[in-house]
Amino acid sequence: MTESCKCRIPPQSGQGFRMKRGDVLRVTDPQGEQVSDLFAFEEGNPACALSSGRSIDYASKIYLSTGDVLWSNDSRPMFTVLRDDVKRHDFLLTPCSQEMFEILYRHKGHHPSCFENLANAFALFGIEPARIGTSFNIFMRVDVDPQGRVAVLPPLSKAGDCIELRAEMDLVCALTACSAEGSNNGSFKPIDFEVLSSSSQVDV
Amino acid sequence: MTESCKCRIPPQSGQGFRMKRGDVLRVTDPQGEQVSDLFAFEEGNPACALSSGRSIDYASKIYLSTGDVLWSNDSRPMFTVLRDDVKRHDFLLTPCSQEMFEILYRHKGHHPSCFENLANAFALFGIEPARIGTSFNIFMRVDVDPQGRVAVLPPLSKAGDCIELRAEMDLVCALTACSAEGSNNGSFKPIDFEVLSSSSQVDV
Repeated sequence: MTESCKCRIPPQSGQGFRMKRGDVLRVTDPQGEQVSDLFAFEEGNPACALSSGRSIDYASKIYLSTGDVLWSNDSRPMFTVLRDDVKRHDFLLTPCSQEMFEILYRHKGHHPSCFENLANAFALFGIEPARIGTSFNIFMRVDVDPQGRVAVLPPLSKAGDCIELRAEMDLVCALTACSAEGSNNGSFKPIDFEVLSSSSQVDV
Repeated sequence: MTESCKCRIPPQSGQGFRMKRGDVLRVTDPQGEQVSDLFAFEEGNPACALSSGRSIDYASKIYLSTGDVLWSNDSRPMFTVLRDDVKRHDFLLTPCSQEMFEILYRHKGHHPSCFENLANAFALFGIEPARIGTSFNIFMRVDVDPQGRVAVLPPLSKAGDCIELRAEMDLVCALTACSAEGSNNGSFKPIDFEVLSSSSQVDV
C-alpha cells in the first residue's frame, strides 16, 4: 500500500473523493466521539448507490464491522470492512439535514448538516441530492431496544480510533464530519481520512 | 369515505396505483402470514421517494404503527398510519430480489421477487428501478436482538387483518404479495387492497 491522499475534514463540513477498486479508505476520529457519514456511488453510474437495506439483509445484522460487506442497491459489494477499532456504526438513519434539525429540534435558521455537505460534494460529480440514501454513519452509536425504540448515544470512538474499508468497485464517495449536536456528545470535531492505493492493483 | 378501488394481488406479484392526498390505502392479509411490500413516490416527482431512514429517525423507533408517519427523503409526510391490526411491520430491509435469492439462498434460475414486481409496476409510471429504496414491508416480522442480529420470522397477521394508511400527498404507489418463502412462513398467498377516497377531499 502507498498513501495517495490524506485529508482533514473540518467540523460540520464534508469532502468528496474517488476510489479505485482495491483502494482502502481509512477514516480516523482524531479527537474522539465524532461521527462521519459515508455515502458512495459506482463511478460513472449514479443509479448504483450504497444500500443500507441490502447490506443489513445480507449481513443479517444492523451493526456491521470487520469482515462485513457494504452492498449496493443492485446487490454488488461496494466496500469490505478490513479493520474496525470501534465496532459500532449506524446504518439505519439518513444523514442529518436542515429539515431534520427543524423537525426534531425545532431549530430556526440555517444549520450545517451532513446531507447538505454530502449533496454539495456529490454535486461536483454531477449526482443529484435525491440519490443520497441512508448513509453508513461511521462511529455513530444508535441503540435499538427490544421494543424497537431507537436511541442516539455518544460515539464509542476514542482519539485515534479508525475504520478501514476496501473499495470493491470504482467509486465516487463523500464523507462528513457530522454536524448534529446529538450525535457527537455536544461538540463538533474534525474527521481525518486517507485513501491508500495499492501499487500492484489491477483494474479489470 | 367512498370506496374507489378494490383489488386482489395474486401470490408473488404486484400492482401499481395512484392515490390523491387524503385517500386511504387499506391493505388486508386475506389468509394470514403474508407480507406486502409498499413503496411510493410523489406523483410527477420521482426524486421524492419513501424514506426508511427519515421515518425511523423522526419516529425514534423501527416499528411503526397507528399514528406514525412514513416520511419522504425530502422530509415531508407521505403516509399516516390510521389503523393497524397487526402492529408489526418491517422498514429495515429492501424488497426481495433475484440477487437476494441467489446470494442468501443460492437459488438457481429466475425467482419472482418483490423488487421485480415493484420495478415493473413503477415502469408504467416512467420511474427507474434504481429509485426504489427500502420498502415499508407490511406484516413482515423482523426481530432485532440486543447484539443487532436480525431474524426474519413468520408474520403475526391473521386472516382478515389490515392496516390503513392515509396519503399525505398525491402519490404513485406499488404494492406486492411477497415472493420470499422465508418471509411468509413457507407459502405464498394473495394480498387485498382498497383505496378509499374522501368525496369531501380538497386538493391544494
